[in-house]
Amino acid sequence: MSKTNILYQHGTLALLVPGLLDGTLTMNELLKHGDTGIGTGEGLDGELIILDGTPYQLDGDGNINIIDGDFIMPFANSHFADYAEMMEIENIERDDLQSQIKQAANSDNTFFSIKITGTFKNMTTRAVRKSSKPYDSLAKTAENQNTFNKDEVTGTLISYHSPTLFDGAAVGGFHSHFLSNDHSFGGHILSFESVTGVVSFQQFDTLEQHLPTDNKEYMEHDFSKDNILDDVHKAEG
Amino acid sequence: MSKTNILYQHGTLALLVPGLLDGTLTMNELLKHGDTGIGTGEGLDGELIILDGTPYQLDGDGNINIIDGDFIMPFANSHFADYAEMMEIENIERDDLQSQIKQAANSDNTFFSIKITGTFKNMTTRAVRKSSKPYDSLAKTAENQNTFNKDEVTGTLISYHSPTLFDGAAVGGFHSHFLSNDHSFGGHILSFESVTGVVSFQQFDTLEQHLPTDNKEYMEHDFSKDNILDDVHKAEG
Repeated sequence: MSKTNILYQHGTLALLVPGLLDGTLTMNELLKHGDTGIGTGEGLDGELIILDGTPYQLDGDGNINIIDGDFIMPFANSHFADYAEMMEIENIERDDLQSQIKQAANSDNTFFSIKITGTFKNMTTRAVRKSSKPYDSLAKTAENQNTFNKDEVTGTLISYHSPTLFDGAAVGGFHSHFLSNDHSFGGHILSFESVTGVVSFQQFDTLEQHLPTDNKEYMEHDFSKDNILDDVHKAEG
Repeated sequence: MSKTNILYQHGTLALLVPGLLDGTLTMNELLKHGDTGIGTGEGLDGELIILDGTPYQLDGDGNINIIDGDFIMPFANSHFADYAEMMEIENIERDDLQSQIKQAANSDNTFFSIKITGTFKNMTTRAVRKSSKPYDSLAKTAENQNTFNKDEVTGTLISYHSPTLFDGAAVGGFHSHFLSNDHSFGGHILSFESVTGVVSFQQFDTLEQHLPTDNKEYMEHDFSKDNILDDVHKAEG
């Protein structure tokens, strides 16, 4: 049975909000559910991107590292790549690109992934520095981030789109990470001016949502006091 | 690999709210994901419960029917039963029972199922009469329901508990269906006074959320105008 219809997610964005940043899944386990993905390490240790089965990390100092199988994460997504070309784009601005993708995808009501290979102008990314226990909230921890900028960079963007209904569990709308072809630049995308390249699309009909039920702090946490949606959008928007 | 850690869900409660009541999954397909479950038929055609691989329907007229494999549903849950006994209960009221279960389950933050076999006092259930296209909203369609009452009835209750974060996709909190041992009474539980019997518990670490991506009306619907949480709680609370 093909599993290219499934988006796997470990953890939720909501659990990051109060600072439940323990690593609760290994990279080896995540790779069983896909050869493509994004995520973050324990204590918000950098920004991850998985391309063709190889997991890369942009750490808080701006280094790109290849991640071991026993690297652990509080939150991550993966899927088995089966993208189809959606469109070629030339010097298109980010907002226009998002509108065109949404129109071509033809539905906000399911999960899908976008892959863009191309040359991006004036891209800004960020990566958070790993923090240690006791963890602060997501908002506090994310203050300890570095931003990185390139005037022009060629590489691969991986993005997941989630329906608004799943906002809080996932990031409603788009969540995008990047890696340059020369492996010198990447991270969680904050902005870019324009891009020339190829957009590919893969639609899912299933979200496989895995929860860290072996983590006592997660299981015992009272989420009713957390301001989940506001904080998620501040940190991940 | 054991799959008793997975709760399968087809559709969302949110899609019922504006009246997207097309059947988009067959019972045969649902049974591939479990031998135990609950759901409703196309057009809110009654209330379903699956016990030991056999799917039963309480229809809007109060008849219990065994369902064919090609019966189609807009919303349903199933899982492979692997319950462990949680407690024996004697003449316990419904509110007390819920508190005791929540305490014993020890976490609101994951999906789990409760199975109760026993004798219930003064149980009231409901089943909706199937409606046809063009469908009304959930609130309107659910007005066309019958309620049923038994002073004393022995049977099986299947309930799913979902974390508040997934409210709207699922029913946050408990969602319970019932079937009497003599197959004369059942449905979506509105209330009961007390119960004597055995409570069993099965925890999941994964929600497998399947969406009806082949249904044009679902994919094209604009959910931003629907009052999802209010209407879900009114109809399913």
